[in-house]
Amino acid sequence: MMVRAISCAAALALAVIIAAQPVASPRAYAQDPKVSNFKLANGLEVVVIPDHRAPVITHMVYYKLGSADEPPGKSGIAHFLEHLMFKGTEKNPAGRFSQVLGTIGGQENAFTTADYTGYYQRVPREYLAQVMDYEADRMTGLVLTDAVVLPERDVVLEEYNMRVANSPEARLGEQMSAALYLNHPYGRPVIGWHSEIKKLNRQDALAFYRRFYAPNNAIVVIAGDVAPDEVKALAEKAYGAVPRREDIETRARPEEPPPVAVRKVVLDDQRVAQPSVHRYYLVPPYSTAKGDEAEAIDVLAQILGAGANSRMYRQLVVDKRLATNAGASYQGSAVDATKLALYATPQPGVALPDLENAIDAVIGDIVANGVAADELERAKTRMIADAVYAQDSQASMARWFGTALSTGSTVQDVLTWPDRIKKVTAADVQAAAKTWLDKRRSVTGYLVKSPPGPEEKRS
Amino acid sequence: MMVRAISCAAALALAVIIAAQPVASPRAYAQDPKVSNFKLANGLEVVVIPDHRAPVITHMVYYKLGSADEPPGKSGIAHFLEHLMFKGTEKNPAGRFSQVLGTIGGQENAFTTADYTGYYQRVPREYLAQVMDYEADRMTGLVLTDAVVLPERDVVLEEYNMRVANSPEARLGEQMSAALYLNHPYGRPVIGWHSEIKKLNRQDALAFYRRFYAPNNAIVVIAGDVAPDEVKALAEKAYGAVPRREDIETRARPEEPPPVAVRKVVLDDQRVAQPSVHRYYLVPPYSTAKGDEAEAIDVLAQILGAGANSRMYRQLVVDKRLATNAGASYQGSAVDATKLALYATPQPGVALPDLENAIDAVIGDIVANGVAADELERAKTRMIADAVYAQDSQASMARWFGTALSTGSTVQDVLTWPDRIKKVTAADVQAAAKTWLDKRRSVTGYLVKSPPGPEEKRS
Repeated sequence: MMVRAISCAAALALAVIIAAQPVASPRAYAQDPKVSNFKLANGLEVVVIPDHRAPVITHMVYYKLGSADEPPGKSGIAHFLEHLMFKGTEKNPAGRFSQVLGTIGGQENAFTTADYTGYYQRVPREYLAQVMDYEADRMTGLVLTDAVVLPERDVVLEEYNMRVANSPEARLGEQMSAALYLNHPYGRPVIGWHSEIKKLNRQDALAFYRRFYAPNNAIVVIAGDVAPDEVKALAEKAYGAVPRREDIETRARPEEPPPVAVRKVVLDDQRVAQPSVHRYYLVPPYSTAKGDEAEAIDVLAQILGAGANSRMYRQLVVDKRLATNAGASYQGSAVDATKLALYATPQPGVALPDLENAIDAVIGDIVANGVAADELERAKTRMIADAVYAQDSQASMARWFGTALSTGSTVQDVLTWPDRIKKVTAADVQAAAKTWLDKRRSVTGYLVKSPPGPEEKRS
Repeated sequence: MMVRAISCAAALALAVIIAAQPVASPRAYAQDPKVSNFKLANGLEVVVIPDHRAPVITHMVYYKLGSADEPPGKSGIAHFLEHLMFKGTEKNPAGRFSQVLGTIGGQENAFTTADYTGYYQRVPREYLAQVMDYEADRMTGLVLTDAVVLPERDVVLEEYNMRVANSPEARLGEQMSAALYLNHPYGRPVIGWHSEIKKLNRQDALAFYRRFYAPNNAIVVIAGDVAPDEVKALAEKAYGAVPRREDIETRARPEEPPPVAVRKVVLDDQRVAQPSVHRYYLVPPYSTAKGDEAEAIDVLAQILGAGANSRMYRQLVVDKRLATNAGASYQGSAVDATKLALYATPQPGVALPDLENAIDAVIGDIVANGVAADELERAKTRMIADAVYAQDSQASMARWFGTALSTGSTVQDVLTWPDRIKKVTAADVQAAAKTWLDKRRSVTGYLVKSPPGPEEKRS
């Protein structure tokens, strides 16, 4: 229900839209993959992940910019610019490359988050050089005219309607994020506020483009049937020609003050098919957490709410029969203070405050009594196994590294993640719950069907 | 309890601190005061309010900049700069002018709000030219060194501790404003967030100063024993010499999206002496309201919560004995969407939700049944009478016009205010309540004593 990552493709008949999965944590490459990485002279970071199962490669460019880096009043410009990045350059007019991809059965996609913007292609290995040329070209060569910008803004506004305006769940998520963050721009939706999106223009897009798109603000991740030396030679040739930009600013974002108040948001909408309770806690991400605190929070979220063996599922759905579903997730990959999110959908007839109290009881139990040894081991084993299974997907592998590197973690951090998870103790998990699942750090959200009239009480 | 206006004076022994009263509305100058206004060639607006009761004048400079105009991450810079404006120029080294004021029994003061920053002097009439020279000089001539900036930042941090950190009421107000505004910078405290204030430096202050301090972004209001011609000649001489700045940007602030969710904030703190319930509604200000809607909201706030005859006081304090105090206010003078604020303090033993329900009943009654004719007349008469009484104070008169002109209203708007209030009908008030006191436009705040442990429920 959180619109943290927006994925979209060029509005071309041949383009294939692949939904970007939210990346919950810098999941590890658990088996030794001989991942290598290097930096070009112009500052571009390159990561190579060999995967020789098929003669295909996945190529991703991550730019270290997201909606949290937008200037005030220009919300949505990061995502809008991502759309406009398909509008062509002098060398590659709009649509030409997508057509090539279509012909060879390739795929492309793009996504915007609060912290990074990414572009993705999956092609037969012999097309790697061409993909690189294309991405290197649009890194600084984008050409925009009002004739292409204004209609694309309508596309984005339509996307807003589809994703947010017509989705009470998304609206509640938007409202809860705004309530969770008092000052930090993570409080603003990645897609932007409607009133601001509709005013974005060519000038805004180009100003943002020139500020952030440069080799020294980008990471290229290549997973697939290639050798590091080969990639290095190709990257030097294609990307090496793009000049470094000296004036790239480090991201200086407004700081989030320490949370002090318990917050609640109630959204009632006649279109709600299923009421639900949500909670966001403000917690540190992997990139800034002290010691192995992020790993403990990750395990805590797993124990609390991942799957049918989780505490929330067992207690709320199975034992107490208050909910039909319940879960938790931790958005560990972020530059700044992030979220641990809980949700539960009530059984018919169960009041949301009762369900909320039951969620509080699940948390209170972990805070007071900690977690069991077998439960801890099961959670950790599952997390590491999930990471191993996910290696079956080239895109997942590329995404782990791209996400990690664009949010302040390193290749080494990703590679050592399973070892750090293995070291998390029951005491660590209990301490994390005590410290971070303090209700004063949180926003609770109720999604309610059919609003009462203005005379009736709503709280 | 809202830290919307911060008033402070130079940290000099002789300076007299005068608390700036929050300006609720552009209260009218109800008797014909022969107010005149004109613009200098460099864009400076001047307002002259004759008041010949004593040989003194009140001189105020309003700059159209406030905390809502701060760059992201630099919260508090508007207020910090206001402090630094007392640090001297080449011509007037720090303290010299304050010393002159001290010698002649003059007063000075300064204040920062979300929309404007003002500087104030009250002096014998023969010192008007000297005051103008002083203000014209520091309009562009401020000299700042780290030696004065850094200690003053400590003064501001101490002010933060005094006003906010040590005041649970102020903290709740801060949290409620942050929850009321999802995108607009009114959601951020005028004094700034502590973590950002402590990083502000000389460069930040000078950048902000150069961006906003200029004759074409200022209004000078002079009330007192002077004639308009005399003021004009003096103003031409003093202020006329300050060059216009062509690159003053119009204020382009992030837009607040339409509110959709009912919000609640609970702040518990052991230092709370008196629990209380508060509510903020997002409502239009005088400057942007359609037709006479702001006037209707102003009358509504008066009927709801001004004094012992108000609905809230009578029903909550006198009839139901649920509260020891209750009231409402409307911050009508603002550039963008503003607040109507309600509060009530419970009788011992009364639970906050019960008090909140009673507040909702007061509102629900007006929404459903409107207001009585005599009650409407009493409210309007009282508002206009208050405005007349307030004319006894030169500073109040100057402030009406300064506030109005720096938030998008005109001299004419102030002068015709009583007539527009007189025209407000019972139907207007009921319509305003229906439209604007919709709970989805609101944040409710509870101030609670002594926090429960983490295991206990808080909601």
